[in-house]
Amino acid sequence: MTNAATLTGKFFIAGERRGSGEVFHAYDPAAGASIDDIGFFSASDEHLNEACAAAEAAAIAYADLPLETRAAFLDAIAANIEGLGDTVIERAARESGLPVARITGERGRTCGQLRLFASEVRDGQWLKLRIDHADPARTPPKPDLRLRMVPLGPVAVFGASNFPLAFSTAGGDTASALAAGCPVVVKGHPAHPGTSELIAGAIMQAASDTGVPAGVFSLLSGTGHSIGAALVADPRIQAVGFTGSRTGGEALMRIAAARIQPIPVFAEMSAINPVILLPAALSARGKALAAGFIGSLTVGSGQFCTNPGLLLAIEGPELDAFLAEAGQAVEAQAPQTMLTAGIHAAYEKGSAALAATAEVKTIARGVHPTGPHEGRAVLFSVGAQDWLSNGELRHEVFGAASIVVRCADRAEMLDVLARLEGQLTATLHMDDADLDDARALLPVLERRVGRILANGWPTGVEVGHAINHGGPYPATSDGRTTSVGTLAIDRFLRPVSYQDLPSALLPAVLREGGQTGTVTRIDGVWTS
Amino acid sequence: MTNAATLTGKFFIAGERRGSGEVFHAYDPAAGASIDDIGFFSASDEHLNEACAAAEAAAIAYADLPLETRAAFLDAIAANIEGLGDTVIERAARESGLPVARITGERGRTCGQLRLFASEVRDGQWLKLRIDHADPARTPPKPDLRLRMVPLGPVAVFGASNFPLAFSTAGGDTASALAAGCPVVVKGHPAHPGTSELIAGAIMQAASDTGVPAGVFSLLSGTGHSIGAALVADPRIQAVGFTGSRTGGEALMRIAAARIQPIPVFAEMSAINPVILLPAALSARGKALAAGFIGSLTVGSGQFCTNPGLLLAIEGPELDAFLAEAGQAVEAQAPQTMLTAGIHAAYEKGSAALAATAEVKTIARGVHPTGPHEGRAVLFSVGAQDWLSNGELRHEVFGAASIVVRCADRAEMLDVLARLEGQLTATLHMDDADLDDARALLPVLERRVGRILANGWPTGVEVGHAINHGGPYPATSDGRTTSVGTLAIDRFLRPVSYQDLPSALLPAVLREGGQTGTVTRIDGVWTS
Repeated sequence: MTNAATLTGKFFIAGERRGSGEVFHAYDPAAGASIDDIGFFSASDEHLNEACAAAEAAAIAYADLPLETRAAFLDAIAANIEGLGDTVIERAARESGLPVARITGERGRTCGQLRLFASEVRDGQWLKLRIDHADPARTPPKPDLRLRMVPLGPVAVFGASNFPLAFSTAGGDTASALAAGCPVVVKGHPAHPGTSELIAGAIMQAASDTGVPAGVFSLLSGTGHSIGAALVADPRIQAVGFTGSRTGGEALMRIAAARIQPIPVFAEMSAINPVILLPAALSARGKALAAGFIGSLTVGSGQFCTNPGLLLAIEGPELDAFLAEAGQAVEAQAPQTMLTAGIHAAYEKGSAALAATAEVKTIARGVHPTGPHEGRAVLFSVGAQDWLSNGELRHEVFGAASIVVRCADRAEMLDVLARLEGQLTATLHMDDADLDDARALLPVLERRVGRILANGWPTGVEVGHAINHGGPYPATSDGRTTSVGTLAIDRFLRPVSYQDLPSALLPAVLREGGQTGTVTRIDGVWTS
Repeated sequence: MTNAATLTGKFFIAGERRGSGEVFHAYDPAAGASIDDIGFFSASDEHLNEACAAAEAAAIAYADLPLETRAAFLDAIAANIEGLGDTVIERAARESGLPVARITGERGRTCGQLRLFASEVRDGQWLKLRIDHADPARTPPKPDLRLRMVPLGPVAVFGASNFPLAFSTAGGDTASALAAGCPVVVKGHPAHPGTSELIAGAIMQAASDTGVPAGVFSLLSGTGHSIGAALVADPRIQAVGFTGSRTGGEALMRIAAARIQPIPVFAEMSAINPVILLPAALSARGKALAAGFIGSLTVGSGQFCTNPGLLLAIEGPELDAFLAEAGQAVEAQAPQTMLTAGIHAAYEKGSAALAATAEVKTIARGVHPTGPHEGRAVLFSVGAQDWLSNGELRHEVFGAASIVVRCADRAEMLDVLARLEGQLTATLHMDDADLDDARALLPVLERRVGRILANGWPTGVEVGHAINHGGPYPATSDGRTTSVGTLAIDRFLRPVSYQDLPSALLPAVLREGGQTGTVTRIDGVWTS
């Protein structure tokens, strides 16, 4: 019997620890060295086949469990993750280079998210219950129709490197898919294999303790792309959750679209999250805005999907003063270890390319790094016309790099916003005198972004009911969905109608009077 | 000034009748001859560009109109279609070969559907309003978050040949997209260009009468595939609605997936809609079931997406008697004109291929056709093992052809069902003694179909709140959606969150107390 907090290097197929042969090692980016205490096994195609078969075999039984059992399972995962104590905190911090305090906060977010989805399962409103009663006297006779949402079936989840807990093995995609009643096969991120094993152990223990079939969860490990590609191509997989790069997300989308049965891919990919400083706000509190901006830009070494990679303001002495303040704040920034050697290298390359662009001015750089994979914050500025004429400047550089676009006037600001690709967020900084300007921008922003903020910063995504962490392409692959918050459950559901079924065959929630506690649309009327 | 009921051969761009040069003609399939009273112009790439530009230009203004205006627009379209009187009935019947009575019924369905979406717009529940209030005392402070659904933007709709009114120019896709607040560009089906022009005139008159921007609707005509392909590829188009063949739907899906910004395609494509005769029902009322089956199979010459192309029953004298009854009913079937020469030819080819398959037995054929494009009903049977080993037998033959699969026992019946691709419907015929059998089949059917019927027939799709006219691939391209009923509006919406926005900038429905009449989720609680 392996203690859940002890690493074995094995992955999980339907509750069993598996793996043998060759191993790979985790990497400590702060030390710039591999972590040799344990080797991790890679899943083979046969392991993938077993995991998908187990998920498919568990799909109907899991979907048919009482919702209370499903909710208890999610609650138990949260409790078991907490039960791992410092072991998982230390391992995740070591594998990600993220500070212990950040990982501790992320654990709270992860467990809170699992419990939120447990309460969402109990809430039941996501079943979207609808009943249209029969009218046999009508010509032609009107049938009895009843509708509920059912789970899609097995879901593939790809762990993200930048949130080794909250967007990984038991992160938002896994929590919402399990809440929807879908078995999950996770392709663990090779940057944090130990963290993934610990979390998977917590999930499997929860399944065992709450009577959930073991096939409802598997974790497959590996370093290359082939196992993930095969997972998305597997005919038993019915949807994909992914958080990562645009390149990675688009690769999965292509595989999913090329299947005999194409499946939805929910990929959260790429955003530069424009921040707009409106004139009165800039004039009234440029200094505070500069501090807030650089704080949001550099937190977590800028490795957030909601990192503010673009700031727009109108030229003038207020903007000059803001840039001077922001520049000083950047120069004071200590370097921070980035998540992986690859992310660090891509950041260096991306920020160097911006610095080498003739029309781009480097405003300031952070303190020179000394550690092996430390990222150095950098702030650029460019004129709006130059930004408009150079499409390269619109791409995300993942890390603490941002471009201030100097606009001649409001019209030029609108031109820039109109040229943006889809974004997760847009932020307006405004005072009362800016209201009309803000009102003019809102319809343009609503077409392009998933979340509009006033007088705040886009980093820090609240997990709740009214959050949308999504946005038009390429922020996500499908702007009709969110990957954070309770609406995320909808991604993994589809409607089924039952026509004239005898009551004995109807799901209990669709029988007369069976809709305990949920708002049901009965003959068109929303009824509690 | 052209009378709305007078054909000009022109298409519509943002309220203007357009077109010049070469013409194509409609075709009367019953006469087997083109309809030469009027020639129809084809839209060019430049026309497409103008239509998409007009749709994009109208998008924000249309989305921001009061919901009551949007609803009045839909109501006015219905009234204007009725105002066309017999002109549109006669034209649609002539262009489709469908009987006047059927087209008259379809007009009722079309106008009812438009009015249902008008009432849905007023209902407002589709806005999915959510409010999470701020908690500044929390660490970290909790922001104020408010969420609503917004329209995706311009939608391309492809008219279907088999419902020249209800699934075409002002059909379900158009009605639900307009209800969602999306401008629509219709690619008219070349099989009914006159019908499309008349309906488009009714839409444009309604826009003009209700103060809706003319760019909210365009109709582009043409006979080839190029204009439709260019429409889906146009960067201003944000979603696609399509009803038609699997080949056509998959072609559009490929174009949509290959865009720089991939977009969702809602294609309703292909189904064989299994009907399962459980033993007690078959034994008790085989004769009535045979009559019902052949009625459902042959109505409208079998040209329905929900046509029962597959019937399963267990071998025995009851099945033999059923087949004899069904065969007699088929033999009595008069031939019926099919929609187009192409559909007729494909039906002939598909049913001939089945007849020529060694293991397939031809049970009966309808009366020999005499008209130019008449389809002849045909009923086949095959053993379950033969069906399982020949993948060709699983494909839809669009028209009044169906295969009865003779199963040795319940296990073989389950094997057949487990091998089915996604379906729009599955139908169970059962008596009380069949309940356990039905219960065992339900979870298998729920994984594969969008609507499950008991003791009815799948043709005839109720337009309401609890209907799902969708299903897993390839029944539709996205089994998470329906193309009929009020849930269809969700296809064209996406969420936007507003974080800490001043009340003055919030949409009125998201201000405190602004949620008149809709159930709103406030701090997690569903509140009326």
